[in-house]
Amino acid sequence: MTRLTDLTTDALKALAGDLEREYGLYRGNRLALDLTRGKPAADQLDLSNGLDDTIGGNYIASDGTDTRNYGQIRGIPEARALGAEIMGVPAANVICWGNSSLALMYLCVELLMTDGIWGDGRRWGAGGAPKVLTPVPGYDRHFTLSDRLGLGMVNVPITDHGPDLHAVRELVSDPDIKGIWCVPKYSNPTGCIYSDATVAAIAELPSVAAADDFVVLWDNAYAVHDFSFPRQPLADVLALAGAAGTADHVLIFSSTSKITHASAGLGFVAASPAVLNVIEARLNVSSVGPDKVSQLRHARFLGGRLEAHMAGHAALLRPKFELVENVLSRELGELDIATWSKPEGGYFVSLDTRPGLAGEVGRLAKEAGLAITPPGATFPYGNDQEDRNLRIAPTFASLDDLKTAMEVFVLCVKLATVRKELSHR
Amino acid sequence: MTRLTDLTTDALKALAGDLEREYGLYRGNRLALDLTRGKPAADQLDLSNGLDDTIGGNYIASDGTDTRNYGQIRGIPEARALGAEIMGVPAANVICWGNSSLALMYLCVELLMTDGIWGDGRRWGAGGAPKVLTPVPGYDRHFTLSDRLGLGMVNVPITDHGPDLHAVRELVSDPDIKGIWCVPKYSNPTGCIYSDATVAAIAELPSVAAADDFVVLWDNAYAVHDFSFPRQPLADVLALAGAAGTADHVLIFSSTSKITHASAGLGFVAASPAVLNVIEARLNVSSVGPDKVSQLRHARFLGGRLEAHMAGHAALLRPKFELVENVLSRELGELDIATWSKPEGGYFVSLDTRPGLAGEVGRLAKEAGLAITPPGATFPYGNDQEDRNLRIAPTFASLDDLKTAMEVFVLCVKLATVRKELSHR
Repeated sequence: MTRLTDLTTDALKALAGDLEREYGLYRGNRLALDLTRGKPAADQLDLSNGLDDTIGGNYIASDGTDTRNYGQIRGIPEARALGAEIMGVPAANVICWGNSSLALMYLCVELLMTDGIWGDGRRWGAGGAPKVLTPVPGYDRHFTLSDRLGLGMVNVPITDHGPDLHAVRELVSDPDIKGIWCVPKYSNPTGCIYSDATVAAIAELPSVAAADDFVVLWDNAYAVHDFSFPRQPLADVLALAGAAGTADHVLIFSSTSKITHASAGLGFVAASPAVLNVIEARLNVSSVGPDKVSQLRHARFLGGRLEAHMAGHAALLRPKFELVENVLSRELGELDIATWSKPEGGYFVSLDTRPGLAGEVGRLAKEAGLAITPPGATFPYGNDQEDRNLRIAPTFASLDDLKTAMEVFVLCVKLATVRKELSHR
Repeated sequence: MTRLTDLTTDALKALAGDLEREYGLYRGNRLALDLTRGKPAADQLDLSNGLDDTIGGNYIASDGTDTRNYGQIRGIPEARALGAEIMGVPAANVICWGNSSLALMYLCVELLMTDGIWGDGRRWGAGGAPKVLTPVPGYDRHFTLSDRLGLGMVNVPITDHGPDLHAVRELVSDPDIKGIWCVPKYSNPTGCIYSDATVAAIAELPSVAAADDFVVLWDNAYAVHDFSFPRQPLADVLALAGAAGTADHVLIFSSTSKITHASAGLGFVAASPAVLNVIEARLNVSSVGPDKVSQLRHARFLGGRLEAHMAGHAALLRPKFELVENVLSRELGELDIATWSKPEGGYFVSLDTRPGLAGEVGRLAKEAGLAITPPGATFPYGNDQEDRNLRIAPTFASLDDLKTAMEVFVLCVKLATVRKELSHR
């Protein structure tokens, strides 16, 4: 095989015929495959069933707290320490609350809109048309959350080192630009890791931005989700912000959702001491305290063995990502009709088709019984103007299903591309 | 002993001398007693340690859901059924989410302010000065939550049968009055149960109110928290609202916080199908699903034995409430210087001193090493205009501590009253 553009029209027609036949076969098979969501598979969840052996009648936390009763909005010390280890920040900067970082993101962004996090009247919702920078392709739930809370979104392209800093620096001269969403390690979906220079530049942004209430929303969801060890490093945004005098303008989020049990994990938010007080006061209005028994389970289960535990995930995930890479490079590489990421951790592979084909690939996949993340979902308002980005989520399927799903997927990419190419000849 | 008002001034002075001496002794004892919060005691929490024996490696819900993974915002079927049993509504009307009903109340009231719950533009925050009716004395967290979300509060006296309906009906002719907070069974703090006629009248309120977006906020926190069995009945507000055509204007809240482990329980909200859809859509923006493993634990632990379980709580709580009643009637009854509630369930005893003395009793108690719920806390803005209501929370203390605490408490009531009476003679 050779590059698609190098094929003669006759060769292209022959290829199209083969692809149409193959596609017809798959479509007749009534497949029901799903590559939509970044969900852990059952064998990954099994790694954490030991959570349920940790209590043994002893509900008392290290500080003497009976975890069964009300209170302690910030969480028990050992759970805060676990969050600190995951996020790479001091435990004193951590609140452990709820089962999801998304809930904490919603709460913090809403707080930024209605009251601010500084106790001095500055708040995003005070006037103007507040907006956040959204590196794209990005995480759909950040977009939905922002839109719901009345924030406009301004896209910034993401590079292999993080958001395009040139674009970012230009945009923050607009005082309506109030913040930036970041997934700094194994970014969803491209899998890139922000470079040290990028982290330093982002930590400084609040002092550079025209808005005096600019906030870095640092969603470190995949902080410890490497496929090999020692872990890939990530620069310490909170320390860099401290040095830059912007520590009150950084909110760090993480969770154990993809470390232990996705539904029954712990959420974390880290911030400066002053901002943490404001978040705690807000939480105190709507909560009688987090589930501290779940916190105790997690601290006992993961304490001192977090990396070993994540190595267990890596052993299950690596073959899936290798399979994806192998099928993509074998089937699309030589034809040169797509580019894709080769992440060393996280949950996704990001693939770009030729412009104008992502939606068609999604349609073809669906007809063949393969659900993929809806094309466009990696952009605010579902609007991928070039219609080319597709997110592959290989974790939930079994290896066998993933193999079939990827074969259908590349077939759909090839078919859509060849049909389009033929229409131009 | 006789009624205080019948004592001669000499007898009163003698009594005052005795009380001052006794108070001095207690004050010297450096006590550290606490009757502030409605927290379950450790022996009550022990009743639910069996929660941790329910999983045994089987995380699959009755509908086949792997409870460890993401999703299912409404909760697993058996957890919704548990909420339905507690709240006395059909399971189809229930969302089981989070570890606290307070979080669901905050979410729903905020949703009422910003978007409404009907999908038709009606919302409390659209203009005017939205207010809720607050039966008093009432629950401080309802007040804090309302205030935080920008709602004014208008007090309504509570009777032995629920809120004073005459006052309520008059007040809802104001279109700025948008709702009413209700704790219909073992109301916090008076312990009254709303009569059938009261429940029916409140279910009809949304059709009577001038506001077309009036909502009944029905916090049924103590639905199954009786001291004896069979349980005291409560009329079915959702069915009555259905009959009155107001079902889309009733939100019912409850939780297992005082059934199992206070921090690690389940929150419930019940509403009409249409309203439930709106709440689910809102939750879906900020949540990847509730902790379904906790839901499974609860459903397996309490399924088919809820009343037997609550009888266990009753056996531990009854002696504490009897002790409170005995000390109050022995020490304050004959003197006729206070009135108090004699609840048959719930978590509190409400006591009214003579006007103008509650704050002083709180001060005296604090000085003697006894923390009580801050006087005024049972009123919005902490403002008990008559300065007479005190909430006694006898559940958390041991029986021994409770006995000492109650002796100090009645001593403080007597001392404050006698001092005041002497100043008038």
